[in-house]
Amino acid sequence: MLRPQFVLFGDSLTQQSFDPAGGWGASLADAYARKADVINRGYGGYNTRWALKMLTRIFPQTAEPPRLVTVFFGANDAAIPGRLGERQHVAIPDYVDNLRTIVQHLQQLRAGSILLITPPPVSDQGRVKYNCELQGVTEVTQIPERTNAFTGQYAEACKSLASELGLPVLDLWGLMQQERDWEAELFWDGLHFTSKGNAVVYKHLQALVDEQFPDLRAEDMAYDFPHHSKFDPANVDAAFQ
Amino acid sequence: MLRPQFVLFGDSLTQQSFDPAGGWGASLADAYARKADVINRGYGGYNTRWALKMLTRIFPQTAEPPRLVTVFFGANDAAIPGRLGERQHVAIPDYVDNLRTIVQHLQQLRAGSILLITPPPVSDQGRVKYNCELQGVTEVTQIPERTNAFTGQYAEACKSLASELGLPVLDLWGLMQQERDWEAELFWDGLHFTSKGNAVVYKHLQALVDEQFPDLRAEDMAYDFPHHSKFDPANVDAAFQ
Repeated sequence: MLRPQFVLFGDSLTQQSFDPAGGWGASLADAYARKADVINRGYGGYNTRWALKMLTRIFPQTAEPPRLVTVFFGANDAAIPGRLGERQHVAIPDYVDNLRTIVQHLQQLRAGSILLITPPPVSDQGRVKYNCELQGVTEVTQIPERTNAFTGQYAEACKSLASELGLPVLDLWGLMQQERDWEAELFWDGLHFTSKGNAVVYKHLQALVDEQFPDLRAEDMAYDFPHHSKFDPANVDAAFQ
Repeated sequence: MLRPQFVLFGDSLTQQSFDPAGGWGASLADAYARKADVINRGYGGYNTRWALKMLTRIFPQTAEPPRLVTVFFGANDAAIPGRLGERQHVAIPDYVDNLRTIVQHLQQLRAGSILLITPPPVSDQGRVKYNCELQGVTEVTQIPERTNAFTGQYAEACKSLASELGLPVLDLWGLMQQERDWEAELFWDGLHFTSKGNAVVYKHLQALVDEQFPDLRAEDMAYDFPHHSKFDPANVDAAFQ
């Protein structure tokens, strides 16, 4: 395969990013059609501790290094101890150490560009509603297993690490809360993106890529074979030299 | 990368298949999230003659062979001589020979499963409307540069070749015309898919894959790493042996 690879590494928010109803990964793949392959390495439910178990197998030393990697964890690390998702919980210092390990591995691999993404905000009400009504969990108390305030601490830690490492960071936690009626409009279960939520993610991600990595601007990247309008039909071979 | 690859090889109808508004390629990628990588090798405007120029570079002998390849050409080969798109035209016997060459190369490569896709139907009125009104072409006569009848001959030839080679074929030309008001509903310019058109393509493609290649049914394919619910949090390493 001739094209650079963009690898999206993360949890369910990455795994579901090719949702045909506007998924942010599909939007990225569409923007880079004929220019880069957008590879989904999202693992639903995973936190950074479990991500480390896969790291060297997903990103082996021998392979052609990816041109761009998005590292998008924290939504599960921020599950609150003592509540429904506690087995996914990772304490903030460990979350930061794990992210650092991921980044260092990618840098050793000579990945072209690395970008951190904070966990998005959480709709506390949306989580309660989802866990009680949609999953048919009747015993759960009216306490969300993730909260916006708690997840915000992970977002802050992610931003601090990015600053320390000199990496760009997409602050979804901050940016998505600027949208009107974000809890109802951007999340269908308080945590995962609606079509509109996906569009917001993609818009900010593409803007950050364009700003931080000018060599990855889609309009400036080359097609891997010439555009058909460039052929002289009488001498097509010349275009493929 | 650990996952099998599904390669979508074709023209603009493949290149645009990750359209976030329901693209059929994105739908396939979503269905196989964590199970297979869906790789877009669509080249807008290309006919089978030009596809051959890229064949051994897109599908080199040395690489891990793809597990599934969709071969989806003909919409441009069927541009009518003497009209607006004539430089793209390829005569039917050549179209068939070129498809056969593509298939033979993939078979030598030991690609797991190969599936042909016929060109979809054309809305003659849609093409005239698009070329006159949307492109601002005022000199063009009211004659479409592609027609449904002419494209249908390519679809027929594609089906015959599939039968000769013993390959499954997705007869989009026939199937899409069974949809109510297909010209207006499934195509936005008489040739390229609307969201609804993409949904129809995906539905039939997935059904054919499920029927013809039982080992590629998404629900039966393994995750490349264990589902997080399978971990014992006290002994996670066991799950990654």
